[in-house]
Parts: sequence; structure tokens; C-alpha cells
Amino acid sequence: MVVRISISRNRRCSDEEDICHNRWHPDIKPAAEVEPGEEVVLETRDAFDGQITDAPSVDDVVRADLGVVHPLTGPIYVKGAEPGDVLAVHILDITPDEFGFTVNVPGFGFLRDVFRDPYKIRWRISGFYAESPDLPNVRVPGAPFMGTIGVAPSRELLTKWRSREDEVAKKGGYVLPPDPRGAVPRREPIASEGLRTIPPRENGGNLDIKDLAPGSILYLPVFVKGALFSAGDAHFAQGNGEVCGTAIEMRASLRVKFEVVKDGMRRLGVTRPVFKPSPLVERFRNYFCLGGFNFHNAEDATQAARDAVLNMVSVLEGVGLNRYQAYLLFSVVGDLKLSQVVDVPNYTVSSCLPLDVFTKPIQLPV
Amino acid sequence: MVVRISISRNRRCSDEEDICHNRWHPDIKPAAEVEPGEEVVLETRDAFDGQITDAPSVDDVVRADLGVVHPLTGPIYVKGAEPGDVLAVHILDITPDEFGFTVNVPGFGFLRDVFRDPYKIRWRISGFYAESPDLPNVRVPGAPFMGTIGVAPSRELLTKWRSREDEVAKKGGYVLPPDPRGAVPRREPIASEGLRTIPPRENGGNLDIKDLAPGSILYLPVFVKGALFSAGDAHFAQGNGEVCGTAIEMRASLRVKFEVVKDGMRRLGVTRPVFKPSPLVERFRNYFCLGGFNFHNAEDATQAARDAVLNMVSVLEGVGLNRYQAYLLFSVVGDLKLSQVVDVPNYTVSSCLPLDVFTKPIQLPV
Amino acid sequence: MVVRISISRNRRCSDEEDICHNRWHPDIKPAAEVEPGEEVVLETRDAFDGQITDAPSVDDVVRADLGVVHPLTGPIYVKGAEPGDVLAVHILDITPDEFGFTVNVPGFGFLRDVFRDPYKIRWRISGFYAESPDLPNVRVPGAPFMGTIGVAPSRELLTKWRSREDEVAKKGGYVLPPDPRGAVPRREPIASEGLRTIPPRENGGNLDIKDLAPGSILYLPVFVKGALFSAGDAHFAQGNGEVCGTAIEMRASLRVKFEVVKDGMRRLGVTRPVFKPSPLVERFRNYFCLGGFNFHNAEDATQAARDAVLNMVSVLEGVGLNRYQAYLLFSVVGDLKLSQVVDVPNYTVSSCLPLDVFTKPIQLPV
Amino acid sequence: MVVRISISRNRRCSDEEDICHNRWHPDIKPAAEVEPGEEVVLETRDAFDGQITDAPSVDDVVRADLGVVHPLTGPIYVKGAEPGDVLAVHILDITPDEFGFTVNVPGFGFLRDVFRDPYKIRWRISGFYAESPDLPNVRVPGAPFMGTIGVAPSRELLTKWRSREDEVAKKGGYVLPPDPRGAVPRREPIASEGLRTIPPRENGGNLDIKDLAPGSILYLPVFVKGALFSAGDAHFAQGNGEVCGTAIEMRASLRVKFEVVKDGMRRLGVTRPVFKPSPLVERFRNYFCLGGFNFHNAEDATQAARDAVLNMVSVLEGVGLNRYQAYLLFSVVGDLKLSQVVDVPNYTVSSCLPLDVFTKPIQLPV
Repeated sequence: MVVRISISRNRRCSDEEDICHNRWHPDIKPAAEVEPGEEVVLETRDAFDGQITDAPSVDDVVRADLGVVHPLTGPIYVKGAEPGDVLAVHILDITPDEFGFTVNVPGFGFLRDVFRDPYKIRWRISGFYAESPDLPNVRVPGAPFMGTIGVAPSRELLTKWRSREDEVAKKGGYVLPPDPRGAVPRREPIASEGLRTIPPRENGGNLDIKDLAPGSILYLPVFVKGALFSAGDAHFAQGNGEVCGTAIEMRASLRVKFEVVKDGMRRLGVTRPVFKPSPLVERFRNYFCLGGFNFHNAEDATQAARDAVLNMVSVLEGVGLNRYQAYLLFSVVGDLKLSQVVDVPNYTVSSCLPLDVFTKPIQLPV
Repeated sequence: MVVRISISRNRRCSDEEDICHNRWHPDIKPAAEVEPGEEVVLETRDAFDGQITDAPSVDDVVRADLGVVHPLTGPIYVKGAEPGDVLAVHILDITPDEFGFTVNVPGFGFLRDVFRDPYKIRWRISGFYAESPDLPNVRVPGAPFMGTIGVAPSRELLTKWRSREDEVAKKGGYVLPPDPRGAVPRREPIASEGLRTIPPRENGGNLDIKDLAPGSILYLPVFVKGALFSAGDAHFAQGNGEVCGTAIEMRASLRVKFEVVKDGMRRLGVTRPVFKPSPLVERFRNYFCLGGFNFHNAEDATQAARDAVLNMVSVLEGVGLNRYQAYLLFSVVGDLKLSQVVDVPNYTVSSCLPLDVFTKPIQLPV
Repeated sequence: MVVRISISRNRRCSDEEDICHNRWHPDIKPAAEVEPGEEVVLETRDAFDGQITDAPSVDDVVRADLGVVHPLTGPIYVKGAEPGDVLAVHILDITPDEFGFTVNVPGFGFLRDVFRDPYKIRWRISGFYAESPDLPNVRVPGAPFMGTIGVAPSRELLTKWRSREDEVAKKGGYVLPPDPRGAVPRREPIASEGLRTIPPRENGGNLDIKDLAPGSILYLPVFVKGALFSAGDAHFAQGNGEVCGTAIEMRASLRVKFEVVKDGMRRLGVTRPVFKPSPLVERFRNYFCLGGFNFHNAEDATQAARDAVLNMVSVLEGVGLNRYQAYLLFSVVGDLKLSQVVDVPNYTVSSCLPLDVFTKPIQLPV
Repeated sequence: MVVRISISRNRRCSDEEDICHNRWHPDIKPAAEVEPGEEVVLETRDAFDGQITDAPSVDDVVRADLGVVHPLTGPIYVKGAEPGDVLAVHILDITPDEFGFTVNVPGFGFLRDVFRDPYKIRWRISGFYAESPDLPNVRVPGAPFMGTIGVAPSRELLTKWRSREDEVAKKGGYVLPPDPRGAVPRREPIASEGLRTIPPRENGGNLDIKDLAPGSILYLPVFVKGALFSAGDAHFAQGNGEVCGTAIEMRASLRVKFEVVKDGMRRLGVTRPVFKPSPLVERFRNYFCLGGFNFHNAEDATQAARDAVLNMVSVLEGVGLNRYQAYLLFSVVGDLKLSQVVDVPNYTVSSCLPLDVFTKPIQLPV
């Protein structure tokens, strides 16, 4: 017996409040109840809830209502799970949709000050590979995973995280506070209190960790009775970094089963997401890399990463991609690695691009 | 015909100024001249120039003269290389020594505010693996590379980098300015002007990139006639991050050959280190990972990395390692990955430990 | 537009003659016509056409009508393909069913003289992994492929292959001649003339090559107009050797697209199956192997392979599997490698078992 | 303390009888005694004992005295090892020489009836890679291992194996009987009784298993007191099959240590070589393969392998290699896999060539 939560492709999350939500809140009603060990299939919406279309125009990107990000299927009430336990989420399978997209949303992304324009790459997913008319001679093998996957916060955590993020905002940080516009569920006080799903937190959420492909196990602390597990925002492929802010975004179907580790938070010391990576992820062998550095601020990994991406974009421009293609392609398949974080004052962040994705030879320096 | 530069194991860098230096400066005399395509074998000293011994005491760590870091073998004058060219360095082989060490030097390392004590793990290297009496039940497969590998800066760059680092220091950054104490060569003005080798720069240098194992190719911009290539500070194994500041440090023997790409800086856009990673590096399959976050500062990869390491150390303490063993082991085999740098305000840096290094089963959460 | 050929799960191949056949013959009518580049999804039956059930009893194995092996979905007429061309079959995706089985059919299999009893292992496939109540503590990751995949022979080849196999049979070889019993299509002369699908031939057919997982490309010579491509007999996982004669057999859904290489047989020299293996296949890292030898006959790879399997079965008995479990498990995940075929008179065939499939530690010699 | 057995490069095995032998016999005197756990470095000769030179002429191949094949360094007496025990041989490291060769010796090799001429490819080994003036645009990464590695037979086994091979010879098999010509040691009765090292046997010997690269562990049954371990015939690289009869042959230096598993033959069921493969071996990602079949004899893996190699040679001829280059290259890097040994009457042996070895693009069908 497999529990299946199906979505209607032509409806929006707000049309199916009983199985979909886009805020984190402990009072959202479960979409289903399952036993540990039982398999569950969750059909999931894409991160933009269907707003991005297969048309070449970027009008949809410009007009996208970001208040609806990320529609999540669930929550699932796992019987026997109680605060203090750990929920082991076995990622059994992720079936991709046939359409995917990568977009640059102005004002969002790692290099949003540099890449200010809307941009869109539409992907045709044929099982193992994705290809795009907007990025010729590139073929990306998939290693799908759920960008957003997590459990409900407790009421205490809701308050605590809210305060923590207010503090960050006060320091000038880029924080999206709770906002009832676009919120699902729409009823109050959830719509006004519910935390936005953009940042990852101790409950998981928008982890965007590419290692969570099929075969992986994600361990999450349980903060409320039943754990209240939800997932959405599937990615067909993503590099470490997801630099432009999106991966190959798609609808998908997630198959999972749960185990409950009693008192796991204390016994195992799991107070945040812990995981066993998927054996599926390492697909590439032929990389081109360059070292990025933070020459102008001491011990700043963010700047070193920025340098690594900017230089990679320049290299890709040299082989015929436009700057946005380069940036988005790196977001989808490129990896950022913290090569060293000790050689003061400069850190080394390497940006690595798998040349295997090019179906026609390109003339890179290496 | 292979050119070979041999060192005397019982002498120090300062005893062999004709083949060893520990500062970057354009006026250091070549140790040898080679043709492109010619093979060169460089015997190299460890990063501390032999100061760290195989004795269990950490007195040597405490008393270490850091002014002599890093003794480099070279420079090699590559015929035909001129400013504006690119030097392709083919890493043909690296033969490890039998002794290696990993140390925590107080005041140095990614978490130097937390790990304040001297600590030492001595390694016995038996070809493919390293093992240590100071870290029982652990066996580390090697993928050796040169921590420090680079070419000489021009006089202009020397000045420019000096200014740049002064700026960083003025902002409170951790910068080691030129210092004649311990400098090799000892003659002035090189000793006082020569740049310290601690940070990596556009000329390569202390890159600490683990992908530069045998089979890799490193492309470096050429800033002076002959390129003046040097290398040292070999690592038998290192994780992405090298968090405690040292890897498995050792003497070694590097075999390289060079190609000169004329006008490569302009033609290829190579103005900093670019590389083709070694196919040797990916050895592990069975990882345990956890997500690190920057909850208290927006968009701060450094803090997220810090969180990832601190939490991994806690996990390892839970399985019987002491905190220093945990920190040093992670430095040697653990990887930091920038999983995402876009989900504002929180970044996700994953810390991943290969469980394959444990020769006796340990009881990790995953 | 994706062409889809759907099967009825509760019907047999003989109930759907328009889309299913189990003999090779040039006169079988196409189930569909497609253009090169067009995607096609073929739902496929298992090798035994549904005769093997999820019940524990082996009665179904004993009573199985082997005349219906292997039901193939198709043929697909590829427009523009003509004799002398090469058909490039891009394996885009294979979606597994939830039920799989591995059986030992008396009188069949590499060691049929030793393993004479019927045996069955039923698998539950949950996306990435298969598990079985009949083989506890084992979990097999999938790398699905079509066991049988090929194109129609020409009339000339039908005759030629028939003669060739008659010759082999005359020498005492194990050959299954054409047999109208169970044949689909049932109409004559196809039923009586059609070649059995058991052996692979120049047209592909029952290749049982595990490398043909998603992402692979199979190149087949074209012998008739339209190529007449068919596939079936999907395997969720199989070792090199498939020693017991079955893999993890299942229904599945294959997504493919075709390219036609004009005059490819002559131009490329492709007169038999050629392939680019899937990057998906290498999943395992932790193997146990032993060397098998042909001590009693010179230069006999078959005997060396036999020795390698028999010894592996003994080793697995030593860790608690019964002999049939051991033999079937090796068929599903174990690899036979021709380590050397030159050291006269003894060849070395290594049998290698991935220990990664055991979910509880076992006590192997290594 | 490392025990080291050094050879004189300009002398022959027969000049150093105290540390070298080329026959298997229980009465050969140990070259050294070691404790379990102690590291031993064995310098080893190439398989032809230096007869093959770096000169382009094949005269040395034609005139080679095959009676001296394979000079082995040893034997090593391992303290505490007794008949019935198992000797675990930890392959710690193998340091290649700078010169290697691959030859076709008339009358030897898998396809000796087809490839009847002497041929030689000389390799220049630069650490990680080998390249050859005799095979332009090819670069082979190394994964060195000892082709011949084993322990002494008991007197009973000597007699038994002798009889067994006589039986095979009587059936017309290609067997090399004991032969005092070229034998080391030269003293009788060892020279006349000692078994030739060409075939592998239960004691290991000429296993030619490429998985025995550094990091592997080889388990051998112990037949005499002290085990009497020997090794030689190092290969820098070899494919599964070693079809032309030689790999990249070289002098080398092997570092090993031993463990003795008391009563291991009975307790573990190890009565022949068992091994844990090296994690070093899988280097390649980009393969081209074709299926080989035994169309003319039922269930004959040898013929299917032959078909697979012959067809691969034809394909390689199509891209500009001559037939001998193709055959020798496949011997060095190509793999033979027993894809299936059940689909009667035809087996499928796939021959797979890693395209990664070509440094200039070639135009293969795939």
C-alpha cells in the first residue's frame, strides 16, 4: 500500500489548500497520516507554482508573484513522531516532469548586483537528460532532488526564528519577513505568522543540497507531534552553489518513507539536517576549474565565491555563451568548493564546470 | 633526460639558498633552467622545514619558527616563457615521504578562536595509506598534491599586492606582512620585500587545492621572464577547506613538465590559476554530511562554513574522538561544499566526512 | 509529441498482437511509425509475460510456459531507415515497475547441472532500491536496462541464422529452434519461422548487457526497411554474467529516440551491436572478489567462469545464504570479469560481489 | 624499519639467485624473513628480465629467451605462517620504473593464430601517465599491479599440479612443462622440477588481475612453512583480458605488508586467491563497447571473447591504428566483460575501450 498525494496540474497551490502550503507554521493541517515504513508518493509543484511557462518570453519571470514561492505538498503526519525525535527520510525516488526551467529573477541570486535582467532557459527533460533550445549544444544529466524538504517548526521556534531574522534584517541583511500576500493557507493567523520558505533553517526547508538525490537519507529533528513533513521545489539538476538562485526547476513526484528515531535529537545530537548523500550524484569526470579569491577583505568566503563565479562567467563568455547563459549554466551544473579557508587573508573557492555537458567540443583554456 | 633538484634532508632551506626560498620575489635566482616539455623532479621540504618531529610532544609545534614557512624548491626558469604567456604545469607524479604530520598551531586555522591549543597527529605513510598512533582506527588514502605551487610576481605586482594587503590589514584583517625574520634568501632587499607565502594570489602560491594531485594540469599566468616556477608544502591528503590550517604535511618529490602558451593571458583570459583536476581525487563513496548555516548574519558563507565545521566536530566527539582529533581529521579528509549561496539570508555549507577512513565501525547518527 | 505504446497489465502478449510479439521475423507488422528524433515510450512486459507472481510458491516457475518468452513491445517502424543504415537508439529513461522477480528455471542457467531446482526471489522495487522478503538484509540499487532490445532480421538473415543454429545444435549445443507453441504473432508462417528470442544475434535481441541503462546509446545495423525496433524483458539490476539466467525481471516503461546513420554499416563498420555505456552503471565501491580458473581444460573461459561462480557461491553459503540465494544474488549484482585470457593453459575469471548490497554486516573472508 | 630487497638493474635474475627465482618450488631459499605487520619493499624485474630494450627494433622480441620468464623477487619467509593459514598481502604501494613495453610474442597471446608477427610498443612512464612514440596521441594513466604474485606450493601440490597439467597437455592443451633451460635457481632438482610461472594456480602466481593495484588486499592460502611469498612482472596498466599476452611491462618497486590468518583455509574457506580490489582502478568514464558472440559453438565464452576482440581491432583499424597497435592497445587498456553466459547458445562478451586514452579526438562510430 502506497499513500499517494496527487496534485491537479492545472490548478494552483491556493486551489488545493488541503494538500499544499507555502509557509512554515505548526498549525497547518496534515494532508495525510502515515505509519513509519509506509511508502508515500508526493506529487509536487515547481517553485513558482506554474507561473513560468514554456514560452520564450521572460514576461512571466518579470511578472512572477514571488509571494507564492515555494508551494509544498503536505504536510504528512508521521505516526509516533514526537518533539525530540529524529525523522529519517528515505528518498526512494524522484520522477521528473518533462518541462523544466532556469530563471534569473531580478533582485535575487548570488550576483544579483551584476545580473540585473530577467532571463529564462527552458528545458526539455527526457528522462535521463535535459536539453534546451535556449542553450544549444548542452545536455545535462539529471540527479533530481527536492530543493525544499522539511518539517514544521514548533510555536516556540516560529517565534525564535522570527526574532533571529529580524535581527539580521536590522543589520541590513536581505530577509523576507512573513507576508500574507500569496500565503497558503490563506487563513489567519497562519498567513501572517507563517515563515517564508526562502531560507533553510534547523527544520530543513529550502536546503538546496544536491546530494539529496534518490538513495539519500535525510535526518531531521522533530519539533511537533507527527513531524509534519512537506516537500516541493524539485530540481532536476543543480550545482553546489545554485548561484543564479534557480536550478532546473520542475514539477516532480517524490517517493519517500519515514523512520522515527526516538529521542534522536538528544541521543544522536541531531539538531539540524544531517544526511547520507545519494550515490547517484557524481556523474561527471571531466572538469575545468579556476580558483577564486577574496583579495580585498580578509577571510571572506562569500567574496572568494563571488570571484570564482565571476571569473568562470568570463571564461564561458570566451567560448560563445552570453553572460546570462554562462551564469545560469553554472547554476545548474557548476560546483563551488571551499578549497581552503585558512591561508590568511585569502580563501580559495574553486569554481568547477563539468565539460561533459557540452555535446559539441568547446575551446576552453584547459 | 630528467632534471632533478635534490635536497639534503638533514639541512634547512636556509642552508641551500641556491635551490630553496620561502618568499615570493622576482629577483630570486633560478635553481635550474629547463625547456618546455622537459621533465623536472623537485624534491621538496615540508611546510615547516623539518621543525615538526615524529616525537609525541607538541613542544615543536609551540616553538616552531613560522618565519620559515613555506620552504619552496626552485625557482625553475622555463625557457621561452615571457610575461603575458601562460605556463601549463603538468603534474606528473608526487612521491610521498614516509613521515607526515597534521598540527594545530595556536593563533592559526579557521577556528583559531575555538581551538587554542597546540596539537599534533603524526602519520606513518605507507605508499597508498597513512595511519597514525595518535588517531587509532583511521586510515587515510592518499591523493598527494603540492599545497604551494606558483610562479614569481613581477616587480609591479609585488608592489600592488603589498598595497592590497596593507588595505586589508588596515580593515583589521589577518595579514602577515613581509618580514625578514626567517626569510630565504636572506639577502636584502629580497628578505624585506619578499611577500609571505601564506596567502594564495594570482601567481598561485599557497593554493591548497586538493584537486592538483597527479594527472592534473595547472595553468598559471606568467609575470616574469622564465616564469620562475617553485613548489613545496606537499600534502599527502587534505579535505576541501583544510580547516585546521594543515593537511597531512610531508616532504615529497614532485615530477612536472611545462608547456608555454604564448600570449595565453590575453588569448585564453587566464589571469589567475586555472586547472584541470586530477582524476585521482575522488576516492570515497560513503559519506556522512550535515548542513551548516549562517543564522546570525545575512549571506555569510564564512559563518555557514564555521557552523558546518563546529557541528561536525560535535558529532565526532560523540563517537569518541577528542575535539582536536575531530578538527584535525576533518582538516585532512573532510570536505566543505557551498551547497547554496542564494537562499537569503541563510547560506548552506555542507560538511561531509568520508566514513571510509574508519577501519573499525563507528556509531554515527547516519 | 511523444508516441506512447501502452500495454494492458491484465492481458497477455497474445491478447495484444498488434503491439506485442515474441519471435524475430521480418514480416511482423509495425505497432507504430516514428520519425528520427521523435521520442517514443514503450510499456513492456516482463520476460515471462506475467506468469511469475508475487506469491511465495515456486509452482509458477515450474509450470511456466517458456514458449512465450520474451514478449516484446513493438516493432517500431523508423522512417527513413533502410538496410545498410545504422540505427542509433538513445536510451532516455526506463521506469521500473514495483514488482520484480529472480528465478531459477530448472534446465536453464549457467550452472543448470548444479542448480536443478526451481527457486524464486520476489522483489519489491521502491524507485532507487529493490528489497525482498526472500533475501533479508540485502538492498539492490537499480540501474535498469532492457534485456532484449533489437531490430528485425531480413529474410536472408532469418534463413542464415537458422542454419547456423542448426549446425550448433548438431554439435550437441543447447539451441532452441523455432517453435510455434506460444508464438506471437500466431499466424503462419511467422509462428513457425520466427526465431526464438533467447540468444542475442547481430540484430541485438537478448543482449543482457547491463551497460545499456539510461544515458546509453545502442547502435544496431538495419536489416529491413523501417528497422522494426522492439524491446522488452526489462531488468532492474543485473550483474555481468546473469549467471542464473534471470536478473531482477520486471515490467517497465522505456523511453527512447532514434537516429538513422545512413550507410552506417559500411561507413562505420557496425555490423553488430555497438554501444556507449550508461554513466549510471558503476554504483558500487566495496567489492569482494575471487579468482576462478580452468584447471582441467586449456584456455577455456567458460570453465574459468564456472569455477569463479561456484567458489563465490561457497563463500556466500559460509555467510548464511542458502545456495540458491547465493546463486541468484550473484546473478543480480555479481560481476564476472575476464581478468586474463593468455596465461596458458589457465585463464583467470574473477567473480566480484559488491558488499554494498548488504544492509547488515556480514563476515566475509575479506 | 622497512625490509628492502634491492636488485641490480644491470644484472640478470640468474646473477642474483639469493633474491630472485623464476620457478615455483617449495625448496627455494628465502631471500628475507619478516614479521607479520612489517613493511617490505621488493624491487622487481620486468617479466622478460631486461631482454626487451628501448630500441625500436623487434629483434629483442624475436630472440627473447622465454625460459627466464618471470623473474620474481623473493621468496619472503613470513614468520608464523603455516600450512592451512591464509596470508593477507596488503599492497601498500607500487612505484613504476620510467621505461615500459608491450610486446606481441609470436606463438603467444589470445589471438596468436591471427597476430603472428613480433611487435613492440615502448612506453615512457612519467609517474601518472605512460606515452609512446610507437602509439601517438595515446596517453595511459597508470594503475600499477604485480602481474605475478604468489606463495610457494607444497611438495604435494607440486606433484598434483604437474599431473593436472600433464592431463591438459595430453588433451592438446597449450601447456609449458617444467624446463631447466633458463631456470633460476639453476640447481637441481629445483630447475627440473620447478613449475613454470606462466599459468596462475591456487597459490596465485601469474594472476594478471588488474584490481590488485595499491590499496588492494590479496588473500592467499599458505602451503608451506613461512608461506614463501614472491612477486614480479609488474604492470603499469592492463585491461581485463591482457589479450596480446603482455601489459605495460616494467621494473617496479612493491611495498607490502603481511598478516597471517591462522587456520584461514578452513575457517574462511580460502583455498585460492581471494581479493579486495583497489579503489584506484576505475579511472575511465568514456567508453566505446561492442558485443562479441560465439555464433558457431554453443556456450563458449572463449569464442565470444575472441569475437569481441577481433571486432574491436577492426573498429580501431578504421580510425587509423594498424592491427598490431590496436591489439596491443586493447591489451593495455581494454576490458573484456562477460555480459551474459546464459542466453543459449550464444554468450555475450563485451569489449570496452576507454576513449579517455586518446589525446586527439578520433572518429569512432560512437
